[in-house]
Amino acid sequence: MTILSLHATNPLVDGRQSEKALLVRRGMQALLADLRHVALPEVPLSSGRRADMLSLSEKGEIWIIEIKSSVEDFRVDRKWPDYRAHCDRLFFATHPDVPADIFPEEAGLFISDGYGAHLLRDAPEHKLPPATRKALTLGVARLAAARLTHAERMLGPLPGGGPEEG
Amino acid sequence: MTILSLHATNPLVDGRQSEKALLVRRGMQALLADLRHVALPEVPLSSGRRADMLSLSEKGEIWIIEIKSSVEDFRVDRKWPDYRAHCDRLFFATHPDVPADIFPEEAGLFISDGYGAHLLRDAPEHKLPPATRKALTLGVARLAAARLTHAERMLGPLPGGGPEEG
Repeated sequence: MTILSLHATNPLVDGRQSEKALLVRRGMQALLADLRHVALPEVPLSSGRRADMLSLSEKGEIWIIEIKSSVEDFRVDRKWPDYRAHCDRLFFATHPDVPADIFPEEAGLFISDGYGAHLLRDAPEHKLPPATRKALTLGVARLAAARLTHAERMLGPLPGGGPEEG
Repeated sequence: MTILSLHATNPLVDGRQSEKALLVRRGMQALLADLRHVALPEVPLSSGRRADMLSLSEKGEIWIIEIKSSVEDFRVDRKWPDYRAHCDRLFFATHPDVPADIFPEEAGLFISDGYGAHLLRDAPEHKLPPATRKALTLGVARLAAARLTHAERMLGPLPGGGPEEG
């Protein structure tokens, strides 16, 4: 259940994500900050899949949020239940143009408008085994720190966290 | 033993660190990458102090590396043993102009020249209690992810991690 690689490319840079997906992500980032979760995008998992967003609560609860920017985007994903093995709760996040009723009852659902998001359906909890949580938390710490170090090497000093930060 | 604040300002930006200290830090970053540790600078600890660098190994071992850029910089620090409560090994790091013999035998010592660093004295191991390690790893994950989110909000897309990254 460890994270496989620290070398993930940033999806904002390599252009693999649609503008709609980025809009959903921005709104989710705002909501997650309100909930005092911190979120990391594009987290590679031991299964070989990649979580669109993985968030950590103050108490260490782990959520995965899969962003679906269109009906088609959801329809082609037949393996979404696999994400459950890597989080305590699994959510989809989409925007108001996608019909909410295409999403399964077995996962939570957020609707994001790019400025914020709201919870339409809560997600059932399936608590991670302690060893999995430990490995995943360590993996997230190493991935986030490696990305920071890399960004600083490329860009020079980064701005510090401001008081608006969750 | 949790990390107190996600709102730390970046020392590279606010000018509190000397050029010598930044040189030591750069060399240490290179060595830590070789050791497959990831490092985060300026990590606030539950004691109210702030670690100059905290690193995480692949297995989750936690090191604190205190950077001392001058004899005076070390002499004024009477509380360095306190850092032991927050790591598995404690090191000082300095540069070749500072006499190595001023540093205590009870901590490890790295000498950094800005491009790399070498280990002059290994540090004794004092393994963290599991609950402390868990809280600290979660705190590092949340701190690093919050800094990334903040930097992205300020700067726009950051470059992804490249293959040279540890």
